[in-house]
Amino acid sequence: MIKINESFLKLQAGYLFPEIGRRVAAYAAKHPDAKIIKLGIGDVTEPLPPAIISAMQNAVAEMASTETFRGYGPEQGYEFLRQAIIEHDYAPRGVKLEADEIFISDGSKCDTGNFQEIFGLQNVVAVTDPVYPVYVDTNVMAGRTGAALENGRYSGIIYMPCTAENDFVPELPQQPVDMIYLCYPNNPTGAVATREQLRRCVEYTRQNKAIILFDAAYEAFISDPQIPHSIYEIDGAREVAVEFRSYSKTAGFTGLRCAFAVVPKALKAYKADGAAVAVHPIWARRHTTKFNGASYLSQAAAAAIYTPEGKAQVSSIIDLYMSNAMTIRKALTDLGYTVYGGVNAPYVWLRTPRNMGSWEFFDKLLHEANVVGTPGAGFGASGEGYLRLSAFNRPQRVKEAMDRLANI
Amino acid sequence: MIKINESFLKLQAGYLFPEIGRRVAAYAAKHPDAKIIKLGIGDVTEPLPPAIISAMQNAVAEMASTETFRGYGPEQGYEFLRQAIIEHDYAPRGVKLEADEIFISDGSKCDTGNFQEIFGLQNVVAVTDPVYPVYVDTNVMAGRTGAALENGRYSGIIYMPCTAENDFVPELPQQPVDMIYLCYPNNPTGAVATREQLRRCVEYTRQNKAIILFDAAYEAFISDPQIPHSIYEIDGAREVAVEFRSYSKTAGFTGLRCAFAVVPKALKAYKADGAAVAVHPIWARRHTTKFNGASYLSQAAAAAIYTPEGKAQVSSIIDLYMSNAMTIRKALTDLGYTVYGGVNAPYVWLRTPRNMGSWEFFDKLLHEANVVGTPGAGFGASGEGYLRLSAFNRPQRVKEAMDRLANI
Repeated sequence: MIKINESFLKLQAGYLFPEIGRRVAAYAAKHPDAKIIKLGIGDVTEPLPPAIISAMQNAVAEMASTETFRGYGPEQGYEFLRQAIIEHDYAPRGVKLEADEIFISDGSKCDTGNFQEIFGLQNVVAVTDPVYPVYVDTNVMAGRTGAALENGRYSGIIYMPCTAENDFVPELPQQPVDMIYLCYPNNPTGAVATREQLRRCVEYTRQNKAIILFDAAYEAFISDPQIPHSIYEIDGAREVAVEFRSYSKTAGFTGLRCAFAVVPKALKAYKADGAAVAVHPIWARRHTTKFNGASYLSQAAAAAIYTPEGKAQVSSIIDLYMSNAMTIRKALTDLGYTVYGGVNAPYVWLRTPRNMGSWEFFDKLLHEANVVGTPGAGFGASGEGYLRLSAFNRPQRVKEAMDRLANI
Repeated sequence: MIKINESFLKLQAGYLFPEIGRRVAAYAAKHPDAKIIKLGIGDVTEPLPPAIISAMQNAVAEMASTETFRGYGPEQGYEFLRQAIIEHDYAPRGVKLEADEIFISDGSKCDTGNFQEIFGLQNVVAVTDPVYPVYVDTNVMAGRTGAALENGRYSGIIYMPCTAENDFVPELPQQPVDMIYLCYPNNPTGAVATREQLRRCVEYTRQNKAIILFDAAYEAFISDPQIPHSIYEIDGAREVAVEFRSYSKTAGFTGLRCAFAVVPKALKAYKADGAAVAVHPIWARRHTTKFNGASYLSQAAAAAIYTPEGKAQVSSIIDLYMSNAMTIRKALTDLGYTVYGGVNAPYVWLRTPRNMGSWEFFDKLLHEANVVGTPGAGFGASGEGYLRLSAFNRPQRVKEAMDRLANI
């Protein structure tokens, strides 16, 4: 008899964004004339810039001819892209990596969801609260947690509350933990960690022989030159951290699917008897067995980001989104809201007015302003009383959304 | 302390194809002038036909303009592709499916590797021997097996030997099993199962409340009109089977990455207490949480396969490969080899001469004819004494390879 993996049955109903989609669809069905502005899920709106389009056109042309056709590529990604990443993303920040420490994938959601597979189920997981739901849900599926609790948390997971009091960079856990998920610049709060805060995380992780799963999907949005872009800018991190990067938000690749994970060869995990094992060959085995490479077109497109034209074009799209973030911050501040984030990240995290609940405020925005945000409570118990607005939309629509907020 | 998933440490050294790559690279380094012909890994060589190229050009152009730009698509795939699959792949064969029973992915390697995650670790797995290594390796990683044995098998897995005596369609297991991996047309042997053989599999599976993981990646190569293309052509299969399909070989998508899984809503698994649960919502949850959709360009390309031009063009590429298979079969038969497959599948499975070992014969072909095959033993103990030749190459190269075989 085929037995289901009962860990899946512990999952709370519905991933956050489907629930938002359901509410928006229900409202739109009742109000077909409403012009809804989405500042919710955080999908990009700007078209791909000319350097990337041109690279894809060339790649398509290559696929049309016997001499240049490309079939299976290396599962870990093409050398041309792995080298470009090292040269442009890491070397200029003083981080030395080898090409085979880079694993090209089809998305950071996949990487951050899959990486836990290579670790034992007895490990204790720590996450921030609020948190990107994928870190938690994939550990629930794997069987690394107990049952869901009434507040939406899961027993067995250590939650690190991010609050206005700690500037949304949490204290490290009091007890030893084994796997720590961190995301800076943070989704959903837009917070960043300073060098000193990251240094303390690395030190804690080294002391506990733990591992940091560092999600840097939004590093391109950092404007403060003092803020590290990579966990490897911290001494000693390569022995205790993997890093996830994505082209989705950086360069508008949400529809193309290309990202990468960095797995240093110095990174260690341990057998039950305490013997150290290198993580790199084990992730390589997982990656090459359960994945067959990102599309060649997506990898060719990603490589174009590192050309001088590509860099300039992508940079001006990031400027556009960050100017939206500024528009949102300023408008909300003028309206008397308390706002966080939006300076080094494309997300603005705002306190709901008059202590409204997150979902209540979400519904109010949807119904009265036809603006879609993301309820903070959807990211965890500590997100209650907050709402996330994304800067990913056309500037004119963002301005209009802010005008509407002035009238509710 | 971060504990590794020790199930990964049970894996035998090296996936088959990296080992082949290593031997070929070593030979090529010593003999830089050798013109090596690869009939090994089974990667396609024909460029993508005009209908697909044109669809991709249009999709790239869409990504360049604000009005037509596409960001995140549905994780399960675009409706236009799911509908085309139902209309062209299933309805004409009398199989009724709904669009949301189709899950678009980035490859059948991923799908066949990932699907086991939603089932309990206590399930007993049955595979054919020889077998596509991904089915086994991903179950080892998950922890569903014991240790590796000397013959390359794993304890705890039920192996169903495929031999010349049973025409490479094995007997069903004597004992009850829970998860049965089947692949028809078969990789590596090229064998197909008749309707009656599939009917018996479905009956056995229903009796045992088990599940069939049916890999139909090569269905497009079936030439015999009596052979089913889908497991759902068998009555009662939708309650006990998932099916995997791929565009990789069918339409030359190995570099593009697009495939799909079919998960009927009638499919059931069971809790430990015997209560039935529907598999569909659980796979949907897994798929939407750990995957973020196949590239829009790949999905647009896949949809073009179903246009009249696309169908005709893809069909003539399949004819070309199957004509290669015929070339290989005829040449080897004339040379006195015993050959199987190559009629309803792009793989020819040949008995090594004079009872040579698979790897010994692999090395002989590489060294004396500069032709690369795949050692049958690499697919399992029952593959010892066989070698797989792939029909995926240019016709001229295939002919030359056969000429060289005449001289060794």
